[in-house]
Amino acid sequence: MAKKLLYGMVGGGPGSFIGDAHRRSINLDGQAELVAGCFSRTPEKCLQTGKELGIAKDRCYASFEEMAKAEAARADGIDFVVVVTPNVSHYPVCKAFLEAGINVSCDKPLCLTVEEAEDLVRLTEEKGLLFMVTYTYMGHVTAKHIRQYIREGKLGKVRTVMAEYPQGWLAYEGEWGGKQGEWRCDPEQSGGVNCLGDLGTHVENAVATLTGLKIKRLLAKMDVVVPGRVLDDNDVILVEFEGGATGAYWTSQFAIGHDNDLAVRIYGEDGSIEWNQVDCEKVKMVMRDGTTIERHRGNAGIEPEAAKYGRLPSGHTEGWLEAMGNLYRSFIECIHAKKAGTFTEDLIDFPTVVDGAEGVKFVHACLKSNAAGNVWVDL
Amino acid sequence: MAKKLLYGMVGGGPGSFIGDAHRRSINLDGQAELVAGCFSRTPEKCLQTGKELGIAKDRCYASFEEMAKAEAARADGIDFVVVVTPNVSHYPVCKAFLEAGINVSCDKPLCLTVEEAEDLVRLTEEKGLLFMVTYTYMGHVTAKHIRQYIREGKLGKVRTVMAEYPQGWLAYEGEWGGKQGEWRCDPEQSGGVNCLGDLGTHVENAVATLTGLKIKRLLAKMDVVVPGRVLDDNDVILVEFEGGATGAYWTSQFAIGHDNDLAVRIYGEDGSIEWNQVDCEKVKMVMRDGTTIERHRGNAGIEPEAAKYGRLPSGHTEGWLEAMGNLYRSFIECIHAKKAGTFTEDLIDFPTVVDGAEGVKFVHACLKSNAAGNVWVDL
Amino acid sequence: MAKKLLYGMVGGGPGSFIGDAHRRSINLDGQAELVAGCFSRTPEKCLQTGKELGIAKDRCYASFEEMAKAEAARADGIDFVVVVTPNVSHYPVCKAFLEAGINVSCDKPLCLTVEEAEDLVRLTEEKGLLFMVTYTYMGHVTAKHIRQYIREGKLGKVRTVMAEYPQGWLAYEGEWGGKQGEWRCDPEQSGGVNCLGDLGTHVENAVATLTGLKIKRLLAKMDVVVPGRVLDDNDVILVEFEGGATGAYWTSQFAIGHDNDLAVRIYGEDGSIEWNQVDCEKVKMVMRDGTTIERHRGNAGIEPEAAKYGRLPSGHTEGWLEAMGNLYRSFIECIHAKKAGTFTEDLIDFPTVVDGAEGVKFVHACLKSNAAGNVWVDL
Amino acid sequence: MAKKLLYGMVGGGPGSFIGDAHRRSINLDGQAELVAGCFSRTPEKCLQTGKELGIAKDRCYASFEEMAKAEAARADGIDFVVVVTPNVSHYPVCKAFLEAGINVSCDKPLCLTVEEAEDLVRLTEEKGLLFMVTYTYMGHVTAKHIRQYIREGKLGKVRTVMAEYPQGWLAYEGEWGGKQGEWRCDPEQSGGVNCLGDLGTHVENAVATLTGLKIKRLLAKMDVVVPGRVLDDNDVILVEFEGGATGAYWTSQFAIGHDNDLAVRIYGEDGSIEWNQVDCEKVKMVMRDGTTIERHRGNAGIEPEAAKYGRLPSGHTEGWLEAMGNLYRSFIECIHAKKAGTFTEDLIDFPTVVDGAEGVKFVHACLKSNAAGNVWVDL
Repeated sequence: MAKKLLYGMVGGGPGSFIGDAHRRSINLDGQAELVAGCFSRTPEKCLQTGKELGIAKDRCYASFEEMAKAEAARADGIDFVVVVTPNVSHYPVCKAFLEAGINVSCDKPLCLTVEEAEDLVRLTEEKGLLFMVTYTYMGHVTAKHIRQYIREGKLGKVRTVMAEYPQGWLAYEGEWGGKQGEWRCDPEQSGGVNCLGDLGTHVENAVATLTGLKIKRLLAKMDVVVPGRVLDDNDVILVEFEGGATGAYWTSQFAIGHDNDLAVRIYGEDGSIEWNQVDCEKVKMVMRDGTTIERHRGNAGIEPEAAKYGRLPSGHTEGWLEAMGNLYRSFIECIHAKKAGTFTEDLIDFPTVVDGAEGVKFVHACLKSNAAGNVWVDL
Repeated sequence: MAKKLLYGMVGGGPGSFIGDAHRRSINLDGQAELVAGCFSRTPEKCLQTGKELGIAKDRCYASFEEMAKAEAARADGIDFVVVVTPNVSHYPVCKAFLEAGINVSCDKPLCLTVEEAEDLVRLTEEKGLLFMVTYTYMGHVTAKHIRQYIREGKLGKVRTVMAEYPQGWLAYEGEWGGKQGEWRCDPEQSGGVNCLGDLGTHVENAVATLTGLKIKRLLAKMDVVVPGRVLDDNDVILVEFEGGATGAYWTSQFAIGHDNDLAVRIYGEDGSIEWNQVDCEKVKMVMRDGTTIERHRGNAGIEPEAAKYGRLPSGHTEGWLEAMGNLYRSFIECIHAKKAGTFTEDLIDFPTVVDGAEGVKFVHACLKSNAAGNVWVDL
Repeated sequence: MAKKLLYGMVGGGPGSFIGDAHRRSINLDGQAELVAGCFSRTPEKCLQTGKELGIAKDRCYASFEEMAKAEAARADGIDFVVVVTPNVSHYPVCKAFLEAGINVSCDKPLCLTVEEAEDLVRLTEEKGLLFMVTYTYMGHVTAKHIRQYIREGKLGKVRTVMAEYPQGWLAYEGEWGGKQGEWRCDPEQSGGVNCLGDLGTHVENAVATLTGLKIKRLLAKMDVVVPGRVLDDNDVILVEFEGGATGAYWTSQFAIGHDNDLAVRIYGEDGSIEWNQVDCEKVKMVMRDGTTIERHRGNAGIEPEAAKYGRLPSGHTEGWLEAMGNLYRSFIECIHAKKAGTFTEDLIDFPTVVDGAEGVKFVHACLKSNAAGNVWVDL
Repeated sequence: MAKKLLYGMVGGGPGSFIGDAHRRSINLDGQAELVAGCFSRTPEKCLQTGKELGIAKDRCYASFEEMAKAEAARADGIDFVVVVTPNVSHYPVCKAFLEAGINVSCDKPLCLTVEEAEDLVRLTEEKGLLFMVTYTYMGHVTAKHIRQYIREGKLGKVRTVMAEYPQGWLAYEGEWGGKQGEWRCDPEQSGGVNCLGDLGTHVENAVATLTGLKIKRLLAKMDVVVPGRVLDDNDVILVEFEGGATGAYWTSQFAIGHDNDLAVRIYGEDGSIEWNQVDCEKVKMVMRDGTTIERHRGNAGIEPEAAKYGRLPSGHTEGWLEAMGNLYRSFIECIHAKKAGTFTEDLIDFPTVVDGAEGVKFVHACLKSNAAGNVWVDL
């Protein structure tokens, strides 16, 4: 086992779910250690979190700009930064660290505008750095299985894809889901889009990752439904892919009964696949003649490229943290390879800044379609 | 128990699934007896089926026109006719029997054009007859439960409805699903629409029946996907209802893995409901706080207006024939009430010619939207 | 189609669930007509039911003895009798009809004592008659599929069987489940055994039918749990089969949450099978390597010997009445074959008096084991 | 957050699943650091694992005896030891560390004989130490919910419990499941019992933990089925609890189709509960009237005493490592409390040496019952 990497975090202060989740998922394998952070825009909160996490006081930074510079200057500076701030600041934070020559792991959606996204793609390439966008669900062993299964042509040509990501936690007027809900529903912090940015980008990425299909054009209907909301909370998008396949996506935040149901159903010429991230230990495949096969992570029949990520025997359930941990596993391996000079592109088994940029383009095409009265928009 | 009614059938000859199904579902309760028929356009086939079913030779008719006249003239003529021919002939057959003063039960979709539909509605009313359109799935006890539950306001105002009806039996190029598939895919016999007419009308009717919502406008995308097909085999429809609720419908005939999955999910202000006709003995309801309740036909908690249709104790599974039998139960009760002079409109607990006409209008709005490039069309 | 058979019924008067169910299941195919009955021991109730069912007054009999004699004497006498009385009278009723030369369909359990059972087996054979015991669940297409699958050796040698039949309807002190519960819990009417006779015999028959295994010895624990009960309401039985396989059975009447869950799991050398009658349209098979295959009635892969009993396409749900109807289908075919002189034993595809006798022997071995303190008893 | 605790490990060398799992689950919260170990009886393997895990060379010990003494003597010695060796050495290892005054976390089953178990209980008490036995599944939030729900009387008096733990990984003659299977099937290493010790103790502990019931007597049937095995691979145990409730347990290692299905069903006077650890994010509760309620970890309605252990929002799946992590969370809190002098018994929310001793007594009662021909044995 190689020496532990060192990492820093921007965001993830008191009450942050996602910062805590990133830390735990990295802990899982114990391959990287948190040594620096700018956990909050409020200095006291930053220091408080730093202390709780055992971070040296001089590496608890008052601003991300300072942190990027200081860490880049240290001999024992961080190998990568984890960006878990609200959407609106993803761009400046990521840019600062890229410019300082530090690898980046940023939560989705990547940023707010297509220009920002393209800038980050360009900068990552120029600097020769690694940039991961944590579309967590694509880290599941079963998701990797589906991707490989389709790549090998086992489903035949894909004909249509039905994908959805409904949640119910923002169903009620006057209830905002605490800190998490507040910034998502606030145009200032979320970047003018709510449900589609939070959930829709996961759907877009899941379908793109699992099927390899590229969207040619789309037609979006974005509705603001719960009284008091100003941003979309229910979206339906019709999609046409290059090559002729079609799709329909749905996301909602008031769909009572759904905790977090990212579900994808893929229909090909020779069979179909059904997957829901809440049942992430299983995948259902149907053959031409209707034979329905269920496979479990850890069992025979899971594609080897996916199976290798499992940590526990079948029936010893893995979940969301393991999925994110799987993304970090590949990200960390790639950083080691970069250091060792053995890196090649095919080592990358995590969503990159390019995937993140696709998500931003998707969001903007949807906004355009919706604003024009639900018409087709080319991507 | 009242005296058995007498009925006749048009269609339902050798190899007909749906004619056989209607006969079995009527048999279930034993409240009506088949005594006449025009089972096929080929006289020998008509006689053969008549003989197999024990029908007197003189009541096996060579044409439906002759049958309507002859039965209307008999003292012991049929109380109602069951029309189970391919879609294209529904209109002339139904019209003939209505004009002869005979009650009609017709399979869906009602007919091909809006004009035909409106003509049948008008004629039914003028003649003071009963006209049932057999949207079978709405006969399920659990479907009736959902309708009543929503009527009583237990779900609050409905916000959005996700409904679908995928099948996989026509997924393969060069395979046509036998006699059943052939006429459905044939523009001549099916009336220029395939998947949407066969499955989409069920979705439209299910949502309308369960929620009571009326479509204000819709946007449809109708695709012809399997090589060799000339009619739609995959359709997505966006819907806006009067009062502000929205919906998205999907139907497909190449969705491998789906036998017959009419499924409806309804999201309201105070909860949600999920139902799939293949699990017709169950209904899932979710409350405001995420409490998920499953109820089984036959158990406490099923609305009394629905529960009364059950024939067996809970856990003694009822299915598709019972659902159709439930429609016939109300239809037959209404005919008895008409005869006894005790009929009132609120006795009707089956889909009528008006519901059938809604389906035809829905299909035509979809065709118009699709032809215009997937634009909004008012209903 | 052959001429309809004629049948009579003993039991099945007002409020009888099981009499009504037999009639409906026979109606389903319309191959036999009810023409005579002794529906109740109370003459007025008998006449009332007869009238409701359209039975001629002179064929509504005051006693089953009279009915057996009178029907045997008629030129147009019944072809078979359906016996749906409480357990205690199964023996005398069946005996009377057998002696009169009339085929019998009797509900389970067959009778109360091993002597009675053996007498009925002997009499059936002597008279050359057909005797069906309606273990309904074995009529399901999926059950027939499992039987055939195992017969063909696809599961390898069976190693162990876990089977259960829990219900919850008699869970409450002071509540007796109406007329149905009352006679079952009454030693006089049920024959000194309650849960084991009602549910345990189904389990015994299901395992025997599906696997072909014969019990060598058993150890039973029969408990009386709900306050106020005098007969068993929770039973566990350990079983050893000839050839070395083992099994464990459980039945209960106070298992809240179970409507009617007859479930069998069979583990062989080369795979396993799981089946629950409430999901009777599905069967789950697992292969050596953990591949889990689900098959649906009506789809490819269902054994042809089973598939032929289906009435509707897959996804058009069949249920309990169809299962019983399947038993009657074979029973009626066999009676026709007897009449035509073409009958051979291999035509029988329904549970016979011999299977019923096995159930009685099973019950008595359990009673003996339990009385002796839960010791092994040879069969 | 308090200072990280330090811990050591005995066992967990190359190829050990369970050692790796303990390390990962502790990592999850990052509250304790591995600093010492005796990972294998082979010195080179011990050093290799130590190096991989970043352990200082002088704290990679050649024997557990040496480790216990050396760590006890250090100022920065370990706060607790994790014992993950094969069953046969649990006793001497745990004893050595207890005698050295070091807290112990030992995998189940605790040890081989009742005498050993009682010795460990006594020693733990005498030394005033904490001793956890890692019955992992009881760490699930849903398991803790069930325990609390029953404690509060919401199920009424428990009447019967059906519990099982089938696996299929040792189904094949000549296949031994690798290193994991070999020692479990070897009388020398596993202690004369296989399936019952490995799986049966989990069932015993789960039922005891969830219901609070104590076994009064039991009757066990332990079978050796797969050719080549010398120890039990399929066990059924009938149980009577103090207070009158009953139970039946089943464990198997050749039940193809089961990865790891520890499942418990509890039937009380006022309702029932159903739980399977592979669906550990859900719990199903049925009310008196058949209302079936499903609750998800993270949602309203989960008992607060259980809910507090959740790390992620509902629908962000937690699994097996989180369950074990929950046990360690309480264990570590208790060690901190001991250090701080604030410890009280009610802080303990993990299975202790006393629970482990119950498991050993259970195993020995089963062996006795089985040896005597499946007779009742008092506990």
